[in-house]
Amino acid sequence: MQLEIWSLGKENDAFIDEGLEYYFKKIRHYHPIRLTLLQTKGKQATTDIERVKLQEEELILSRLQPFHMLILLDERGKALTSPQWAHQLQSFMNQGAKVVVFLIGGAYGVTDVVRRRAAQVWSLSPLVFPHQLVRLIMAEQIYRSVSILNNLPYHHGERE
Amino acid sequence: MQLEIWSLGKENDAFIDEGLEYYFKKIRHYHPIRLTLLQTKGKQATTDIERVKLQEEELILSRLQPFHMLILLDERGKALTSPQWAHQLQSFMNQGAKVVVFLIGGAYGVTDVVRRRAAQVWSLSPLVFPHQLVRLIMAEQIYRSVSILNNLPYHHGERE
Repeated sequence: MQLEIWSLGKENDAFIDEGLEYYFKKIRHYHPIRLTLLQTKGKQATTDIERVKLQEEELILSRLQPFHMLILLDERGKALTSPQWAHQLQSFMNQGAKVVVFLIGGAYGVTDVVRRRAAQVWSLSPLVFPHQLVRLIMAEQIYRSVSILNNLPYHHGERE
Repeated sequence: MQLEIWSLGKENDAFIDEGLEYYFKKIRHYHPIRLTLLQTKGKQATTDIERVKLQEEELILSRLQPFHMLILLDERGKALTSPQWAHQLQSFMNQGAKVVVFLIGGAYGVTDVVRRRAAQVWSLSPLVFPHQLVRLIMAEQIYRSVSILNNLPYHHGERE
């Protein structure tokens, strides 16, 4: 099962890219994983929020394939615990999902069309994080899920 | 008002230190801030959880001063939003707090003695994060709070 993180927004600062690679390397012992940045063309007028959201919708839908299991990350989503993340990933594998796409929407959220396409909507925290930190948190939680499912000592054993 | 993050646990990987410095630099335009790692001596037998927690308690109490406003980060704490973090920081300033200490406890949590010493107990998320990622998340949220209180465009304006 292939894992993908899709994120609207700017490039990462170097420390985030290093952190992503740190977790991606560990995850890749179990699943292929990559980050894809989705960037709309040109500079958007940030005042026209609806137009930005529609441009982003177009970009997201143009890349989505019918076999993509889409998980939307959104503050209005369901707040899962780490073991629940692991349980969900296992259940996607059991359902025979080929590709799971974790989508981090734009600054203004996603359109209803994108939201309805998502199999599930998850929330990381009631706190607002910058996109690049969300990408890093996602990578760490995916590694944590993988470690729970494979009985690695990471989740419970290690005192970090 | 000086800000301190105290954390039990291991040293940071390089990408975390870089990320901390990235946010600390921005925060220091408004408040002094630093990370202090609290490390108990020797290698602990991880099986004797109560003993580890008592060693950590001793270490924490030996450093705490009466004028330290202690905020404990703990998954059983109150889940605040980012504007609520900012509001709390403002209220500490209004109360004349000289030093706010954000304490990230050990892998097994803190003792009741430490918990009772805390002015407040905050939770970041229902997810479990490694200590070094909690340190980075804390730094970013503190910068976000500062930016909210000083009307910087970071919290709402920037599309990241």
